[in-house]
Amino acid sequence: MWNQLPEVQAKVSEFISRHSAVEGRRVVLVTSGGTTVPLEANTVRFVDNFSAGTRGATSAEYFLDAGYAVIFLHRQYSLQPYSRHYSHSKNCFLDYMTTNGQSGEAKLPSPEQSPKVHVDPEYESAMIDVLLKYRKAKDQHLLLMLDYTTVQQYLLYLHQICKIMGTLLGRRGMFYLAAAVSDFFVPKARMVEHKIQSREGALTMVLEQVPKFLKPLVKDWAPSGYIVSFKLETDPALLVPKSQQSLDRYGHQLVIGNLLNTRKWTVTFVTRESHNNVTLTPAEQRDGVEIESVIIPELVKRHADWIGVEKR
Amino acid sequence: MWNQLPEVQAKVSEFISRHSAVEGRRVVLVTSGGTTVPLEANTVRFVDNFSAGTRGATSAEYFLDAGYAVIFLHRQYSLQPYSRHYSHSKNCFLDYMTTNGQSGEAKLPSPEQSPKVHVDPEYESAMIDVLLKYRKAKDQHLLLMLDYTTVQQYLLYLHQICKIMGTLLGRRGMFYLAAAVSDFFVPKARMVEHKIQSREGALTMVLEQVPKFLKPLVKDWAPSGYIVSFKLETDPALLVPKSQQSLDRYGHQLVIGNLLNTRKWTVTFVTRESHNNVTLTPAEQRDGVEIESVIIPELVKRHADWIGVEKR
Repeated sequence: MWNQLPEVQAKVSEFISRHSAVEGRRVVLVTSGGTTVPLEANTVRFVDNFSAGTRGATSAEYFLDAGYAVIFLHRQYSLQPYSRHYSHSKNCFLDYMTTNGQSGEAKLPSPEQSPKVHVDPEYESAMIDVLLKYRKAKDQHLLLMLDYTTVQQYLLYLHQICKIMGTLLGRRGMFYLAAAVSDFFVPKARMVEHKIQSREGALTMVLEQVPKFLKPLVKDWAPSGYIVSFKLETDPALLVPKSQQSLDRYGHQLVIGNLLNTRKWTVTFVTRESHNNVTLTPAEQRDGVEIESVIIPELVKRHADWIGVEKR
Repeated sequence: MWNQLPEVQAKVSEFISRHSAVEGRRVVLVTSGGTTVPLEANTVRFVDNFSAGTRGATSAEYFLDAGYAVIFLHRQYSLQPYSRHYSHSKNCFLDYMTTNGQSGEAKLPSPEQSPKVHVDPEYESAMIDVLLKYRKAKDQHLLLMLDYTTVQQYLLYLHQICKIMGTLLGRRGMFYLAAAVSDFFVPKARMVEHKIQSREGALTMVLEQVPKFLKPLVKDWAPSGYIVSFKLETDPALLVPKSQQSLDRYGHQLVIGNLLNTRKWTVTFVTRESHNNVTLTPAEQRDGVEIESVIIPELVKRHADWIGVEKR
């Protein structure tokens, strides 16, 4: 884990330097996916947080559409922008492919005929749209992908990225912290060396609190950045009070609150002054509109206001 | 979870009936991937076991090569046979694709020209091999894919599948239990309703032992089946003793022991009478030979011997 840090630092520095030199270019760090908490030094078991990375991967696409450069810090194997349309779906990627123009069925080719593999015509036009956007982001160096697994690795990378962004970008940097970070972990010193043996009776695990990183992020790492955190709850009554408690405690700009069961079509924007729901209409839900297509433009506007404050 | 059970039962019954009617057809259940242990009824946090599902997904392909029909009971989003070659890799699936014959770069098409998407010629011949095998398995109904998430769901499905296989297949059924099943879980009655709130201080979790399913599997569900379990350890000194302890306790045929750090190129076959290593040579390791290409033919032979015993 530690020996990847110089490589991550180099990639981030190069990326941020490139974009900070472009007049008016804004950059967003999108964090995405859960974190693991290893319970053993040679890790077999870990505590995980539920998150496929849908919110982060989807949001990254809309930030790219809005002209942002995006650092996508994501849990290994969680959903990624663009490829998300073809992974983690009921269909295996190979179901989109066919041979020699035959839809849905592969014929073994005759010996003199070299076989060809194609995208099934049914899926081709959707795939070309996704592929062109993906290539544009890559060719124009607008998307930097970095992955992590454990909560320790996440915090280490986050710290480095925020410091570089804070230094080089000032108010042009946004921090969109959609990753589901564990609140608890097992400190290295307390970790057992080998796999915990199953034995008769119950297993008792004692986990310590993960250090709160939002306070140093806001205060020291990127004090001019526009910082958006997420709050996921299952109890509706706790959503706004806990979001406001978080703003009071850490001093950042915005909490996006969501409930486990309704998060695909409604979120709550909570600031110190106000809170309001961002919701898809029933018609939009029916048509498969993604709520991130509403969330991101609203954030782009608020980020512009934040940049504007400095200029006044 | 419970309401999917009738669908799983119907699929499995149809699949096993079809293959039990084919003279000499053998069927293997391959279980693959980790299990989750929810800590909350509205699950945000869970304990997980490390497993990408590589062993199970790879093994399923070699069983299909050997003429077996395969039930692939796998953790949702873990690796799957065939698609494993293109998922969970450093390359995004879209990196294999290109437009209008241009390798590695997409050109925005001129308005009168409709864009086409292709497999990059560099990857085409490897992809056609994988795709033809995948289509053959699907078209000949040789592969049944079933997925689960929690340890409770895993045990429920395992029970049903084993009972159906045990009844209809007798000695022609093999059980290749490569899933990394949690030893501990939180019983429903002890689960909290909502997300565990982070608060000052440590978090103490008490987990109970998961019921041992190998004993009823061997004794009641599929007493004539050829049953292979896996043992993953990090301490080499524990591998053979713990494997033999497992055989003594549950009375099945074979334990495949593996160590976390060497499992890609060496495993140990442990029976009540003997134990021997199955290892790739350094040259084979260098050439990227998969150890499952050695494991599966050896199992196919042992399974044939097991079937033969009945006939004598």
